[in-house]
Amino acid sequence: MNRTQENIHKWLIENREQAIIFLQDLVKLPSTQGNEGLIQSVIATNFLQMGLEVHMWELDGEDLKKHPYFFSTRESFVESPNVIGVLKGKGNGKSLILNGHVDVVPAGDLSQWENHPYHGVVQDGKMYGRGTTDMKGGNLSSYLAVKAIKELGIQLKGDVILQSVVEEESGGAGTLAAVMKGFTADAAIIPEPTNMKIFPKQQGSKWFRIRVKGRSAHGGTRYHGVSAIEKSAIVVKHIEGLETVRNQRINDPLYANIPIPVPINIGTIKGGEWPSSVADLVLLEGRIGIAPNEIIEDVQREFKEWLKKLENIDPWFKKHPVELEWFGAQWVPGCIDENHPLMAILKAKYKEVVGLDAVIEASPWGTDGGLLTQVGKTPSIVFGPGISSKAHFPNEYIELDDIFLTAEIIALTIIDWCQIAKIRKR
Amino acid sequence: MNRTQENIHKWLIENREQAIIFLQDLVKLPSTQGNEGLIQSVIATNFLQMGLEVHMWELDGEDLKKHPYFFSTRESFVESPNVIGVLKGKGNGKSLILNGHVDVVPAGDLSQWENHPYHGVVQDGKMYGRGTTDMKGGNLSSYLAVKAIKELGIQLKGDVILQSVVEEESGGAGTLAAVMKGFTADAAIIPEPTNMKIFPKQQGSKWFRIRVKGRSAHGGTRYHGVSAIEKSAIVVKHIEGLETVRNQRINDPLYANIPIPVPINIGTIKGGEWPSSVADLVLLEGRIGIAPNEIIEDVQREFKEWLKKLENIDPWFKKHPVELEWFGAQWVPGCIDENHPLMAILKAKYKEVVGLDAVIEASPWGTDGGLLTQVGKTPSIVFGPGISSKAHFPNEYIELDDIFLTAEIIALTIIDWCQIAKIRKR
Repeated sequence: MNRTQENIHKWLIENREQAIIFLQDLVKLPSTQGNEGLIQSVIATNFLQMGLEVHMWELDGEDLKKHPYFFSTRESFVESPNVIGVLKGKGNGKSLILNGHVDVVPAGDLSQWENHPYHGVVQDGKMYGRGTTDMKGGNLSSYLAVKAIKELGIQLKGDVILQSVVEEESGGAGTLAAVMKGFTADAAIIPEPTNMKIFPKQQGSKWFRIRVKGRSAHGGTRYHGVSAIEKSAIVVKHIEGLETVRNQRINDPLYANIPIPVPINIGTIKGGEWPSSVADLVLLEGRIGIAPNEIIEDVQREFKEWLKKLENIDPWFKKHPVELEWFGAQWVPGCIDENHPLMAILKAKYKEVVGLDAVIEASPWGTDGGLLTQVGKTPSIVFGPGISSKAHFPNEYIELDDIFLTAEIIALTIIDWCQIAKIRKR
Repeated sequence: MNRTQENIHKWLIENREQAIIFLQDLVKLPSTQGNEGLIQSVIATNFLQMGLEVHMWELDGEDLKKHPYFFSTRESFVESPNVIGVLKGKGNGKSLILNGHVDVVPAGDLSQWENHPYHGVVQDGKMYGRGTTDMKGGNLSSYLAVKAIKELGIQLKGDVILQSVVEEESGGAGTLAAVMKGFTADAAIIPEPTNMKIFPKQQGSKWFRIRVKGRSAHGGTRYHGVSAIEKSAIVVKHIEGLETVRNQRINDPLYANIPIPVPINIGTIKGGEWPSSVADLVLLEGRIGIAPNEIIEDVQREFKEWLKKLENIDPWFKKHPVELEWFGAQWVPGCIDENHPLMAILKAKYKEVVGLDAVIEASPWGTDGGLLTQVGKTPSIVFGPGISSKAHFPNEYIELDDIFLTAEIIALTIIDWCQIAKIRKR
């Protein structure tokens, strides 16, 4: 352990309690979609106190809304600002973005929570609450990394850009807006909950809706009708076939241990209006996973052509083809070269801090890393504390130790990537 | 053609125009569930003008609501009365019920109607409108038959009981209440739309709801969950198997030409809450047809046991069995002996009037005949004008000629069944 690493390690121990209280403060703010104003003010204040250059603005303008990768269910972003804190470097160094979103998904049925979702209860080294894992815990790792560097008097060559964005859960408009305002960098780390695995590749995804048609009749003479419910079972099975074909194509060793690298999930089904009538319409809604190397438009075309083949399975579909619609959210797939220098640094720092080799995998879900990579031309790695299977569910929690381990790894990665200009005496 | 038949035939021609206007008046009253008050007043007035003994009362009382065959979505029947008109016989004759409901199903999407559903437009010998076929047209046949007999001065031995009931479309509480008030008879005819076929047997039916369970997960790692949508496809297929087994048992020649005598229709499906989550629950709602000779409780037991067998198809169902619930409406199956004397009379009168043999079939849907047969011990035949496939749909209509043919056949059947005591000079 060199002197800098030792200092960072000590600083994190000394500041641990205060940091946990700060995380609790953040969890206590229910920053669901449309309610991110207060938490962003708290974070902006925190960035100012850290001595960063702070930018705070409400998403707006036709340029953003007309961007082909703009997806949002919202019309207005008033009181839902982005906040960016920049630790300016001396120059001649590589820049790094630490991106994290503050929006959380709703808590859902409160009766399923053992502790209140917005109290941030700490038990047995874990903090419980909505957003602890996804991803206020990870964001804290980023803040701590930058704060430690700053407070230890380490002056970097390259800039570090802390992006506290809104709207990740609904399609990434916050990160898109940050990129469009010019906040890009030589590379990025996003501390989404990977359970401290390193994800150089992230699956994208897109939502679809399929209308399956039948023909109505009275249930007592159902043979006069055609059941859209029975036909939808054929459609569901057929889509499973496409999932198989798409996943057989994937030979990336990063996906070796993942049963279905790019799943097609049919999440909702709804059809028919009356128990004793034959249903003439079923709606299916789902999410198709997009591989890191895929172009979204190609996936859309392949899906459409696959559904056309239904007419070979059942002639009904020839005269009554299913209708495919793309709606709601989209997450752009993200990717960084596995031999990218930031990958090497992050793996090395992981080993230095944890003592083991990092696990390298591809993520089964999308992050804002896709937008950073594809629109912002900023290669991105997803690496953070917390377990994604706890996200979006009741009793979400995070292991506090992992937040501090991640903070240490990120701090050392920053130092290696951005390079030290000089160290002020404390 | 004997003298009586000739007189009835002439009477129906002379009164045709007035009768069509009366039917139009009835169609103009949108007597959907809860809105039967006005039409029942009009019918009661009509019965009084015909010189019948009239009974009119609102359904009520604990006895009714606690009856095992009471099914209704309503708590109160205020302003939804039953009306009964009795043509008293001289005595020593057999009595006959002519049962018909005044409630109609909602018109639905008005844009799908070529004519307004409640205007009763007449075009090319058809009257269009909600309730024309189901079953105001058939009711008119009954009224005309009784009115012709009365006006022609024919005095019968047995009583004729015109039952104008509410609530057939929701489980038969109107007919049940009439039976419980003592309005039963030696036999009954129900002029529901059989397209003038004679139905000595009527399929019953019962509604069910099935809960199919899965296990939630994020769509990107859907292999961690169990899709209730995929499991529901297995359940739908399995229920088709029960339908096959149940229909293979049916050897009644009346069902020889019916593709599926007692269908099991799954009419609605609903499950999942989010496109990118694995659905953990799917609800199926449907209607199971009950053969005329079946006991409802046996059918319920067989269905439950069949669903238990799902665990042999997929072990998932062993730990997560589907849940079966009976809800909503029930129609009791109805049946009359094919050699019952009323059958012979009706067939003979059909041939006299139409000149062809009547078609004898079993009905694919339930009527209030089940309650009359099983609770009221009144063997019932369903026979009426109108095509059932036009019922419950936009652009419902009835062929006006068939109303008058049916009226003539019913009038002659009444005379043969109830027997003439004497004929007054006009």
